[in-house]
Amino acid sequence: MSKINFHDLTPAQVLLMGYAVVILTGSILLTLPVATVNGEGMSFLNALFTSTSATAVTGLIVENTASFFTMFGQIVILVLIQIGGLGIMTMSTLFAFLIGKKLTLRHRLVIQEDLDQFQLSGIVRLVRYVLGVTFTIEGLGAFFLFLRLVRDMPMGKAIYFSIFHAVSAFNNAGFDIFGNSLENFTSDPAINLTICALIILGGIGFAVIAELYDGKKFKNFSLQTKLVLSVTLVLLVLGTIVSFALEFSNPETLGNLSWQGKGLAAFFLSVTPRTAGFNTVPTGALRSSTLFFIIALMFIGASPGSTGGGVKTTTFGALLAVLYTTATGKEDVELYKRRIGKEVIYSAIAIIAISLMLVVSVTMILAITEEAAFIDLFFEAVSAFGTVGLSTGVTGNLSVVGRILIIFTMFAGRVGPLTIAVAIGERRKRKANIRYPKEKILVG
Amino acid sequence: MSKINFHDLTPAQVLLMGYAVVILTGSILLTLPVATVNGEGMSFLNALFTSTSATAVTGLIVENTASFFTMFGQIVILVLIQIGGLGIMTMSTLFAFLIGKKLTLRHRLVIQEDLDQFQLSGIVRLVRYVLGVTFTIEGLGAFFLFLRLVRDMPMGKAIYFSIFHAVSAFNNAGFDIFGNSLENFTSDPAINLTICALIILGGIGFAVIAELYDGKKFKNFSLQTKLVLSVTLVLLVLGTIVSFALEFSNPETLGNLSWQGKGLAAFFLSVTPRTAGFNTVPTGALRSSTLFFIIALMFIGASPGSTGGGVKTTTFGALLAVLYTTATGKEDVELYKRRIGKEVIYSAIAIIAISLMLVVSVTMILAITEEAAFIDLFFEAVSAFGTVGLSTGVTGNLSVVGRILIIFTMFAGRVGPLTIAVAIGERRKRKANIRYPKEKILVG
Ligand SMILES: [K+]
Ligand SMILES: [K+]
Repeated sequence: MSKINFHDLTPAQVLLMGYAVVILTGSILLTLPVATVNGEGMSFLNALFTSTSATAVTGLIVENTASFFTMFGQIVILVLIQIGGLGIMTMSTLFAFLIGKKLTLRHRLVIQEDLDQFQLSGIVRLVRYVLGVTFTIEGLGAFFLFLRLVRDMPMGKAIYFSIFHAVSAFNNAGFDIFGNSLENFTSDPAINLTICALIILGGIGFAVIAELYDGKKFKNFSLQTKLVLSVTLVLLVLGTIVSFALEFSNPETLGNLSWQGKGLAAFFLSVTPRTAGFNTVPTGALRSSTLFFIIALMFIGASPGSTGGGVKTTTFGALLAVLYTTATGKEDVELYKRRIGKEVIYSAIAIIAISLMLVVSVTMILAITEEAAFIDLFFEAVSAFGTVGLSTGVTGNLSVVGRILIIFTMFAGRVGPLTIAVAIGERRKRKANIRYPKEKILVG
Repeated sequence: MSKINFHDLTPAQVLLMGYAVVILTGSILLTLPVATVNGEGMSFLNALFTSTSATAVTGLIVENTASFFTMFGQIVILVLIQIGGLGIMTMSTLFAFLIGKKLTLRHRLVIQEDLDQFQLSGIVRLVRYVLGVTFTIEGLGAFFLFLRLVRDMPMGKAIYFSIFHAVSAFNNAGFDIFGNSLENFTSDPAINLTICALIILGGIGFAVIAELYDGKKFKNFSLQTKLVLSVTLVLLVLGTIVSFALEFSNPETLGNLSWQGKGLAAFFLSVTPRTAGFNTVPTGALRSSTLFFIIALMFIGASPGSTGGGVKTTTFGALLAVLYTTATGKEDVELYKRRIGKEVIYSAIAIIAISLMLVVSVTMILAITEEAAFIDLFFEAVSAFGTVGLSTGVTGNLSVVGRILIIFTMFAGRVGPLTIAVAIGERRKRKANIRYPKEKILVG
């Protein structure tokens, strides 16, 4: 990559290009005959879909990962997941370490953009830390999965399956090689709790993990960590209760499970939209009220600087804080006795607005091009945008236009629609900083 | 009403109580045997539904207004529409004028809240003006409708029908006594253009009408008027183009119409979500992509200080402005060379957030209690919240829980969810105005 002249590109533009190069490389690898069981390779469009889905850590699939791909194909997917989950720049830094190259300032600036960091100082230490945390947690997760899986399958297969699903879970990728996600393990506590722990840790972000690891008390955490932990906790508790209440009597999902099974399955339904994409009960059998609720959870998604997607828990928290501020007539938005600047609130709102417009537009186009119930297409669009990967079953039947649209949506969801807008817009010259007189308008 | 002791109530609370009293009075009148053709009166739940729908100028109906009600019943509905459209306090001021009573300061404060005004000065002049504009425009509209309707029906009936539909259209109420809304007039230019003019004038708000009437140039308008006019224009143009493109080939809607008919019907589809509720093509026959698009338009709704509902065009405009501000890296939100204060933006965001939560919750509950396609229930919930009154046909089949929920949603949509939140919350003592230190959070 060092041969390309990056000097005219902004960090956001370098990022977009980097992801595009990885996705294209992955696509080409998946079209090779050696990648598929039938020995013919995948069609380019489907390979592009799969490669984008893996790199964007989404998990939507047009062919069953377990039965369609050879181990070579599966490992290509796993590598794409790890690159996509860690972020392209972290991976290229790892590569630079390995070949002993020094990082340029430009390289550091792009990492900063990719990892959602405030400061440029300590970037290299940060990357080392991120890599260490990732491989440690994935290793521990794989170990616990292995203890359970080795009871059902040969040692070698158990090791492969443990690593694959630990990496897929921590990176919130949602790809599985069981063939039916985790539906064989609906009531299995060991698998459920290990996978949920990996998903949640992957989704709360590396900065939060660091503060948790330091063992400080809650009141000494940074505002960011306090907000991530409270919103995540509220969404998990609320999600479990609502899922339980809505699906309790549905014979195709929770209805025929034991009490423990019902509890685990409801908990899993609240964890997976943050934005893992595994499922333990068939998504297509959920009631439409539950699907709509999960659409909202998927739209919110995971936390910033994590492997998850969506508009992010802190963005949602900022929205709630604005609501509280207005209802109580306060002047500034405050959270945990800290003031939030208007520029942060404006960013949060912009992200929610552009994301809403994106999913509404994508759903509308799908409703024209595809033959499926509206709720299934709405669900598919938000799942792709939030890089969740849950589907009621329409992915494999998408038309060519539908596939291309979902590929675009997954990509936009991973890099962030605002990053794309900024990449296009940021080179325009800003006008001199005139401050116009204030004038009121009526809203609502 | 002067016997009730209002001294402990805030303006927002007086408003809520006023609307509740009007709705209950209307309900009781509609249960009288003289109100219905079958001579048995309406059941109380259905009468409450109809009275709320009329007072909230929504137009959702559980019984056909044309065939179920006597002329007495229809006139009760028409009076409720006029009270609801003008606002309860404007009506009580009219009443005070008529009996020669002086307005108290408290009365003026409540009017201010009801009419969305900045200033307390000139309130009485404003009310006179609002009444004058309303009856003038309704009179002109009725005259034009009469010229067309008298060709099809006897003079007396034509007068009654002209007045009813002019009032219903200007107040964005959507009630009709043709029995099938305006489906007999799909390609009729006289009816379409008169009704659309009434809807649009009713929906842009009295302050904007005043500035338009003064004949100033666009650049001399207030920011409020500029914003209302631009957003309304964009929504009308975009709505016509998208509706035309989506329904062009649908044989049940635009497909079999002439070119002129297609154009008029597409234009009407873009006008009616702002939030009139009349329809010239069968709503239930629209494609799901069109329904979803109309859901978005209904959610945005009409302009502040008007007879229409929704989160309002200016609120939506503020959201777009925040998006533009963030994408271009500006510090303040600016519109037409004016700075918008953060307290206005925060209010806009709070209104959108609480409204979204409301329609999502209502849709979820409807999806549990009702037997209908998800898109139809989502459409019904947003139509009720936006006081639009369009329906794909599920209203009459709603369960008791569904009816009660829609009654609540129409009421909340008319008075505004934030007004309810403030009415409940505003009496709490504010804490001393401590300004906390600023801290950053990551969003998106
Ligand atoms: K995922
Ligand atoms: K209406």
